[in-house]
Amino acid sequence: MGFDPASTVFQVHQGGKLVVRSTLALRDRDALSLAYTPGVAEVSSAVGGDEALARDYTWRGRLVAVVSDGTAVLGLGNIGPAGALPVMEGKAALFSEFAGLNSVPIVLSCTDVDEIVETVVRIAPSFGGINLEDISAPRCFEIEARLRERLSIPVFHDDQHGTAIVVLAALRNAARVTGRSLGDLRVAVSGAGAAGVACSKILLAAGIGDIAVADSKGIVHTGRSDLNPVKAELAAITNRAGYIGSLADALVHADVFLGLSAGRVEEDAVAKMAPNAIIFALANPTPEVDPAIAHRYAAVVATGRSDYPNQINNVLAFPGVFAGAFDAGATAITENMKLAAARALGDVVADELAPECIVPTPFDPRVAPAVASAVAAQARLDGVATL
Amino acid sequence: MGFDPASTVFQVHQGGKLVVRSTLALRDRDALSLAYTPGVAEVSSAVGGDEALARDYTWRGRLVAVVSDGTAVLGLGNIGPAGALPVMEGKAALFSEFAGLNSVPIVLSCTDVDEIVETVVRIAPSFGGINLEDISAPRCFEIEARLRERLSIPVFHDDQHGTAIVVLAALRNAARVTGRSLGDLRVAVSGAGAAGVACSKILLAAGIGDIAVADSKGIVHTGRSDLNPVKAELAAITNRAGYIGSLADALVHADVFLGLSAGRVEEDAVAKMAPNAIIFALANPTPEVDPAIAHRYAAVVATGRSDYPNQINNVLAFPGVFAGAFDAGATAITENMKLAAARALGDVVADELAPECIVPTPFDPRVAPAVASAVAAQARLDGVATL
Repeated sequence: MGFDPASTVFQVHQGGKLVVRSTLALRDRDALSLAYTPGVAEVSSAVGGDEALARDYTWRGRLVAVVSDGTAVLGLGNIGPAGALPVMEGKAALFSEFAGLNSVPIVLSCTDVDEIVETVVRIAPSFGGINLEDISAPRCFEIEARLRERLSIPVFHDDQHGTAIVVLAALRNAARVTGRSLGDLRVAVSGAGAAGVACSKILLAAGIGDIAVADSKGIVHTGRSDLNPVKAELAAITNRAGYIGSLADALVHADVFLGLSAGRVEEDAVAKMAPNAIIFALANPTPEVDPAIAHRYAAVVATGRSDYPNQINNVLAFPGVFAGAFDAGATAITENMKLAAARALGDVVADELAPECIVPTPFDPRVAPAVASAVAAQARLDGVATL
Repeated sequence: MGFDPASTVFQVHQGGKLVVRSTLALRDRDALSLAYTPGVAEVSSAVGGDEALARDYTWRGRLVAVVSDGTAVLGLGNIGPAGALPVMEGKAALFSEFAGLNSVPIVLSCTDVDEIVETVVRIAPSFGGINLEDISAPRCFEIEARLRERLSIPVFHDDQHGTAIVVLAALRNAARVTGRSLGDLRVAVSGAGAAGVACSKILLAAGIGDIAVADSKGIVHTGRSDLNPVKAELAAITNRAGYIGSLADALVHADVFLGLSAGRVEEDAVAKMAPNAIIFALANPTPEVDPAIAHRYAAVVATGRSDYPNQINNVLAFPGVFAGAFDAGATAITENMKLAAARALGDVVADELAPECIVPTPFDPRVAPAVASAVAAQARLDGVATL
């Protein structure tokens, strides 16, 4: 992955991927007097006196900040804020292209939890929502929790909840297509980072049978003394069957493998899963289980890659989640709103449901509106809507 | 100035005035793979390894943050960050419309100098330049000075330097059209805030004869004990003639009145100015000297209003200043770059120079390119250019 300015990818990224434009042409005195001084003084005075008017008379009502400190960028790790910026621009471009929302990347030169929280709180009046991105675990959990407490706008760590929503939607459809319910399923999860924690929690909330989560040291269980607070909580709410040992031990007779780390899983471990297994091997670019091997044992296979069927891609969730939250003027994104998003996303493929079609493609135009509508409706039921 | 949603100005501001859009259509798998994962990983990896590449492969190379804490918004005063947002959106729209730059408003929920400085430093990796706006004096001086020291990107407080550049350009042309040089002129300035301080400094740097500045307590002089550090510095470098007393005292035989506050100046004070006086009454919406009265005594009259000739409008400066700084990859905006901007701006009207045409109109398409070109050239002479 060297720097080659002549290559297509560098050509495409030349000059960045976003533009900000005025919605008003400012080519004569009258236009300028309305959009800027003196006309804008009336608007500023009104908004200054009643902040609720900011939703209608500024752009922030539909504006998402994509915030990262560059510590966990894709599979590249801690490459800093400048290195993170191309990814965050891409994310902002996706908000625009898939949901018509405005979005601005904010990359930070600090990595301390207190500093990140204070910084986001201080710039928050500029935005309608905060999408946290590529911040390393376990700091990401505390940062999100504290921002949710401090701010009355939607705060959403996409690496956690975007992934969790799409995984739940896909798993419900995988269960349906194999004639089972979520309550029948025992899941082995590889990875106890942002995605592993959030997926485990949403699956439990959706009524999954049981989950065993493995990190690099093996299965997370209450007998381990090396767990950080987030993993200790995970140990308390998962693994009701009391597994100890390695990921391979958890895979014996498991119905579902959910891969959320780069760790490779050998064929002999896969072979010991239950019949009609479901394998979600989401590591990019190399799935934890080779899809060809997975298909030998599993009834349904999903990956994170666009060149295989059943791509688990966060872009199926986050544009619609924020669009729905903004439509409802939501002051937060509740657990129920995430569950509603997953349900709506899964239902998009209802008629086309098949082992090779458990989620829609990212380019299905029904996705964002369906997710947005479900999220907005749930926000109203949950009492966090202001519209 | 009540809130009337049916009025034209509120209709125009509905939904805000800015949009962020992707420069790339992301409508198929190939486009998505280049602009986002997996393709973007190559770009992020390269930029993470060599931050200089961020200028070419992210949007920040031509991206201005318009930063305000909402403490001194237009003539409205401290109306807070939400109230400031419509003005900052307008400013960002002007950057786009007048210089093709990208710009994002950042309004802050904090007003403490340390907190503002730290916040801007932490978000700075997201941007190519910082335009400070509508931050009350004297905090604005310290905030700008500290950010200039901490950051290696252009930092520019427009209320100071944008105004100063346009005033100098206009005053040089006013001197020329009345057959004088800057060194001949004695100036009385009303207002010792952001604009008063910056205008006084740039006029001194340009070789003005003498300046007396008056604040609400009268002429600023070294004998006063009530001066904050910024005004004490102003007292040391201005008022070589040693005036004490009120603004009216400074106006006796003055060649130039420069009004940068809302304070009204009576006709009998104006009447005592030197023959062929120059009056810049820039308060908005009500000039310090009524233009009809000013014309009785002055050879050249300028205001801040668009409905009179000679509008002193910052939009003549800031788009070109940032465009030129970006063109040169400038790490700062030097005093010489501001002087060069003023010279280039004044020269745009060379052939049309007349008492009613000492500055171009904001819609003259020659302005931003002329200013940008001069600023970039001066950046290279001053050793702050990287391109």
